[in-house]
Amino acid sequence: MNATIISIGDELLKGHRINTNAPFMARELGAIGISASRIVTCSDDPRDIADAVLSALAGTEVVLMTGGLGPTSDDRTRRAVQELLGRGVVLDEDAFERIADIFHRGGRPVSESMKEQAMVIEESVTVPNPVGTAPGMIIDCGSRFDHRHLVLLPGVPVEMEAMMKGTVIPFFAQLSHSFLRHTPVMTVGIGETQLSAMIAPVEESLPSGTTLSYLPHTAGVSLMVSTRGSSLEEVDEENRRVVEHIVSKARSYVYATSEMTLEEVVVGTLLENKLTVAVAESCTGGLVSSRLTDVPGSSGCFLQGVVTYSNEAKCALLGVDRVTLEQHGAVSEPVAAEMARGCLLGSGVDIAVATTGIAGPGGGSPQKPVGTVCVAVASKSPEGTVLVEAKTFSMNGDRRQNKIRFSEAALRELFFRLKHA
Amino acid sequence: MNATIISIGDELLKGHRINTNAPFMARELGAIGISASRIVTCSDDPRDIADAVLSALAGTEVVLMTGGLGPTSDDRTRRAVQELLGRGVVLDEDAFERIADIFHRGGRPVSESMKEQAMVIEESVTVPNPVGTAPGMIIDCGSRFDHRHLVLLPGVPVEMEAMMKGTVIPFFAQLSHSFLRHTPVMTVGIGETQLSAMIAPVEESLPSGTTLSYLPHTAGVSLMVSTRGSSLEEVDEENRRVVEHIVSKARSYVYATSEMTLEEVVVGTLLENKLTVAVAESCTGGLVSSRLTDVPGSSGCFLQGVVTYSNEAKCALLGVDRVTLEQHGAVSEPVAAEMARGCLLGSGVDIAVATTGIAGPGGGSPQKPVGTVCVAVASKSPEGTVLVEAKTFSMNGDRRQNKIRFSEAALRELFFRLKHA
Repeated sequence: MNATIISIGDELLKGHRINTNAPFMARELGAIGISASRIVTCSDDPRDIADAVLSALAGTEVVLMTGGLGPTSDDRTRRAVQELLGRGVVLDEDAFERIADIFHRGGRPVSESMKEQAMVIEESVTVPNPVGTAPGMIIDCGSRFDHRHLVLLPGVPVEMEAMMKGTVIPFFAQLSHSFLRHTPVMTVGIGETQLSAMIAPVEESLPSGTTLSYLPHTAGVSLMVSTRGSSLEEVDEENRRVVEHIVSKARSYVYATSEMTLEEVVVGTLLENKLTVAVAESCTGGLVSSRLTDVPGSSGCFLQGVVTYSNEAKCALLGVDRVTLEQHGAVSEPVAAEMARGCLLGSGVDIAVATTGIAGPGGGSPQKPVGTVCVAVASKSPEGTVLVEAKTFSMNGDRRQNKIRFSEAALRELFFRLKHA
Repeated sequence: MNATIISIGDELLKGHRINTNAPFMARELGAIGISASRIVTCSDDPRDIADAVLSALAGTEVVLMTGGLGPTSDDRTRRAVQELLGRGVVLDEDAFERIADIFHRGGRPVSESMKEQAMVIEESVTVPNPVGTAPGMIIDCGSRFDHRHLVLLPGVPVEMEAMMKGTVIPFFAQLSHSFLRHTPVMTVGIGETQLSAMIAPVEESLPSGTTLSYLPHTAGVSLMVSTRGSSLEEVDEENRRVVEHIVSKARSYVYATSEMTLEEVVVGTLLENKLTVAVAESCTGGLVSSRLTDVPGSSGCFLQGVVTYSNEAKCALLGVDRVTLEQHGAVSEPVAAEMARGCLLGSGVDIAVATTGIAGPGGGSPQKPVGTVCVAVASKSPEGTVLVEAKTFSMNGDRRQNKIRFSEAALRELFFRLKHA
């Protein structure tokens, strides 16, 4: 079964608001085997709404609309649909009672415009609104439209979400007979072109019910493996097989097969192994520490971080040798190594990571262009000797992208050291 | 002039990614008087792409498409458009040189698939990609399509953004003849309800060509003042008058009347006054340092930061008194004050800011619930005495939101101190 999602609202078209409703609805529908084949945003203009609904009904079996249900003058969805289907409205007693109750409790009088909000289109299934006032509707559009379904929901995200989960999804779960399974494969340290070459055998032998999407992000690319079929067991089995095939081909770049961030995996590994970590940053300016401390429970492994932007700070806080700075420059593997070693020994942690680089736009040179970063990881061997390794990477982005990519490289090196420890 | 924005990608239809490209493009187009009348998301299927382009070209003068330009097998946009228009491709030498250069620097060989990425549709204007590999195209679709324009851009947000600003917007600014001026009014430390009450007189006397939108974000709300008209001078004048009226009503909460972040304003003020800054963070975990160092040129004022997550680190790195920690707890104004003072004196900067709080989800108590943060600012008076002030704020969000709001409070307190110094 296919669906079109129509989001109504001038503020969406002007770009003043980001549409988070449509992706939520698409995910919810996907979980019961209904795939969105088109997402459309149109204006509050009734002709525009009617136009969007007509072409959606021509192409898909279910059409879900959000926005334009409520008390203000720019809410015209219900009327546009009424006109299109040639149907009147009836008062939904339950919805009206609920609205009246909310207003009574707020000490406000019940007016005619509130009654207006409780009106639903004839011959529709009311979708109760547990967190707001205006109810939604599920409408069988009749024989003229092949009995396709139209769903009207308010545009306020919390109301729409509660109504989708409470009524709309259960309703269509009964009508739908296919299943869909999505599994993400999260990778780090590999680009789209390389990854695509590496998993070519998987793509070539993909079973017919499974598709593969590349999800590039600022610091790499992830994969989504989606499988569809009529038996839940078969769908799960086929999806699992493809995921395993991908992992076998790209093992060293895969850090998770669930929706996890790299910092979540790093913190999880640290906590699991009862290890503590400290961070010494120059070019990343605190971002590595901030990403690690984004993870709930990170205080169980993250002890401290320093951001040593100036050379003085590198010497004073991390014990970097002034001679090393002069001989190799602040952006160099020896300085990164001394930062990591100083951080490890100064804080008493089990593992430390350091970054020094040129985020740009200024500060680059022909030998060390903008985008150069040196990352060092220091840890103690079981015998107590300090093991430090520094590497240089080269990125290609603006200042903020470079900071993100540098921090990704630092977390990745940390992850690799933990994995192979 | 009207536009359709088409976002291509199965991952958008599945709801695995939120579409932030379309609103960005809509805002940019709006600024030169082109309004988006439809935003459509379609799948990677070439027939679906062709179908979406055809109906868009029937209804609007400009059609912008993002996604599906790149090296992997799910990138099919260019081919779908080629087929639709019946045009071949030619190699764009500049784009190819750029791609080859990026791969050479990364030490990777240049393959045929890279050449493929530098191919553009015949008779199109190439849109250079300053931050990635695949170039974009602006295509006059010829007499068969009333010479309407088709714009192809990659789906990676930073690439699309740079290409819109660098080439696409200047191109269409020439073709468009009505004017629109947007001026943001950026505020900090005030919510939507309060701000709305404060500027009620402005809203009541708004000229007919001007609209006001509230843009709530994680740490507050900003305003967008939009004015449309046929004379550039009148549009500018009316827009300026409304902005000045808003600023006169909400002066103490406005930190900028341009697209500037709070950290940009703080760094700008520091550089202008030749002042240096250091940061001591607990609950914000490096985010305050990271935000300050996001600003190009921040190395001219930001010397160092420390993230003292553990109590030991607070004592060792900032000289916080163990007795203060025991008597008041780590999340307290006295500890925040000692952190800021220690940071100021230890680093020799002119001004320092410190944060200590509970980001959650764990760690809260009835006296100090999750969302509590103490922020202290320390600076030296002209006579050399240290001035420290600590304040407590209470926020209401999840861990990541709290970190952002805590960091916003720290930057705000820094900004206020600088403003009133």
